[in-house]
Amino acid sequence: MDHATTHVPFAIAVHGGAGAIRKEKMTPEKETQYQERLVASLQVGFELLDSGRSAIDAVCKAVNVMEDSPLFNAGIGAVYTHDGGHEQDACVMDGSNLAVGAVAGVRHIRNPIDLARLVMQDSPHVLLCGDGAEQFAVLHGMSLEETSYFDTKHRRTQLDKAIAREEEQGKVLFGDGNLDHSSDEKYGTVGAVAMDREGNLAAATSTGGMTNKRWMRIGDTPVIGAGTYANNQSCAVSATGHGEFIMRSVLAFEVHALMTYKGLPLAEAARTAVNDRLGAIGGTGGLIAINSRGQIALPFNTPGMYRGWMVPGCEPSVGIYREDDE
Amino acid sequence: MDHATTHVPFAIAVHGGAGAIRKEKMTPEKETQYQERLVASLQVGFELLDSGRSAIDAVCKAVNVMEDSPLFNAGIGAVYTHDGGHEQDACVMDGSNLAVGAVAGVRHIRNPIDLARLVMQDSPHVLLCGDGAEQFAVLHGMSLEETSYFDTKHRRTQLDKAIAREEEQGKVLFGDGNLDHSSDEKYGTVGAVAMDREGNLAAATSTGGMTNKRWMRIGDTPVIGAGTYANNQSCAVSATGHGEFIMRSVLAFEVHALMTYKGLPLAEAARTAVNDRLGAIGGTGGLIAINSRGQIALPFNTPGMYRGWMVPGCEPSVGIYREDDE
Repeated sequence: MDHATTHVPFAIAVHGGAGAIRKEKMTPEKETQYQERLVASLQVGFELLDSGRSAIDAVCKAVNVMEDSPLFNAGIGAVYTHDGGHEQDACVMDGSNLAVGAVAGVRHIRNPIDLARLVMQDSPHVLLCGDGAEQFAVLHGMSLEETSYFDTKHRRTQLDKAIAREEEQGKVLFGDGNLDHSSDEKYGTVGAVAMDREGNLAAATSTGGMTNKRWMRIGDTPVIGAGTYANNQSCAVSATGHGEFIMRSVLAFEVHALMTYKGLPLAEAARTAVNDRLGAIGGTGGLIAINSRGQIALPFNTPGMYRGWMVPGCEPSVGIYREDDE
Repeated sequence: MDHATTHVPFAIAVHGGAGAIRKEKMTPEKETQYQERLVASLQVGFELLDSGRSAIDAVCKAVNVMEDSPLFNAGIGAVYTHDGGHEQDACVMDGSNLAVGAVAGVRHIRNPIDLARLVMQDSPHVLLCGDGAEQFAVLHGMSLEETSYFDTKHRRTQLDKAIAREEEQGKVLFGDGNLDHSSDEKYGTVGAVAMDREGNLAAATSTGGMTNKRWMRIGDTPVIGAGTYANNQSCAVSATGHGEFIMRSVLAFEVHALMTYKGLPLAEAARTAVNDRLGAIGGTGGLIAINSRGQIALPFNTPGMYRGWMVPGCEPSVGIYREDDE
């Protein structure tokens, strides 16, 4: 799946989450829906890049396409918290100047990546949270969404099941290792990385977090260097998986560090970060990464990762399972 | 100030914030108060380490000493938010197993570092936020503090001045570069790093953030890899300064990366991170770092940083200004 052409004028990659995604549990219809949405996301970003727009534009708009689909755990498809609400996190980073914007725990934002971008562009801050982030949104003319917008039947079913399991076992199960990892409840974060015609890199990530989450838990997505990082000197990275482990690995920045200081090429740096850093502490997930030559890597240590990439002169390429299983 | 002995059985360093701390603006009484509290913090941590307790114990208890003093911007001395409240962030990391706990935006926690430690030890999570973090605290038997506990006259005066300046200029000034950086309003984060008798490293950081902050802004302190990081393989780091820039620099992890992948010794890695990474994007601040030989570095690019370190066989050593000015 690694794309290693020598040089392209621009390129984009996207992911729609990594996890226990297995071909035997997937229907052909569902598979097609995911593939189509990944392609749609890639094409939106690709066309912007083709017309000379920035990598930041491309990654945000590509993420919007996935946020607007109930298939993914972001935007309208965000999972439920323990209290039956939705708390979303998002982050965008501009590799040309290391500018970043992020939001955590927002409840009424249709496209959290747009608010993250607003924080980056119109505030002196990097990370705003909860009600405060929404006050900032309103001040800057962004409208709040009714929470009912985020109510979807399949996510509610996932919450109900998670709570039933907890009641059955009489304890909080979320994230403690007893959760049934064979379900696809946990991971569905979306993200995009791109290189534009000027050679600038950008990364964007958006997520509803984990089903049944409590206590305003914040995951890796809005944490610069963990779920999201971009630096023209090395790479742009968007990660997905078990957030706590991605944070402890400082995963996205680890790819940057392996390239910058150890001199590893992109694909090897990305693979090392996922297998030897995230994996070493028991973490599961994956990431997409791009360098300033437009090379792309998409490693993961889970059974599957919704992913795709697109460069000039090629059809969009998407994948769901391990290459052997495709 | 850099301590570079070949090997000590254990060691600790602390900071009480970096910023525009100038000798000509300090009274001898104030100076003595800071020095005494830094020494008290060091001694508490040192004695724990001496008696064989863990680096985690030492850094948390050393931070408690500063959280319990109105001198520092953490705990009882936390600065005011724009709304006249207090929102505190804290993070602790165990270098022996990369376990981390962090809280952001907590309003009723007397010692936020204790709650961060509770998150690390008793939850499957890394980062909890706001009311959610406090629900978790109560569930685990931690009592909530009245907000009046955090009301101090000198911090209220700082808020009043900040708001008056904004009204005078008719715009939000906080963090936009127009703020009077000659005051000590901005930085006062506290932190500690330690190596224990078993060679384990730990880092802890606690802060009230920035005076007059809005929108539940979260700074670098609770962001793993930015304000706080610990890894037995390299170093433990606690940072202080302009949080947005520290986050964009992924500053604490940068020290780790420079040591691990570029092979720099601790002092050079720490200095490079502060001068050539944080400084390169216009950020101001400093950090304390320790490696598994008990070597310590305390670089900063501000006029001053409240800081100190202590190793067996030496009296505690504390500093406030640049070495030339001491």
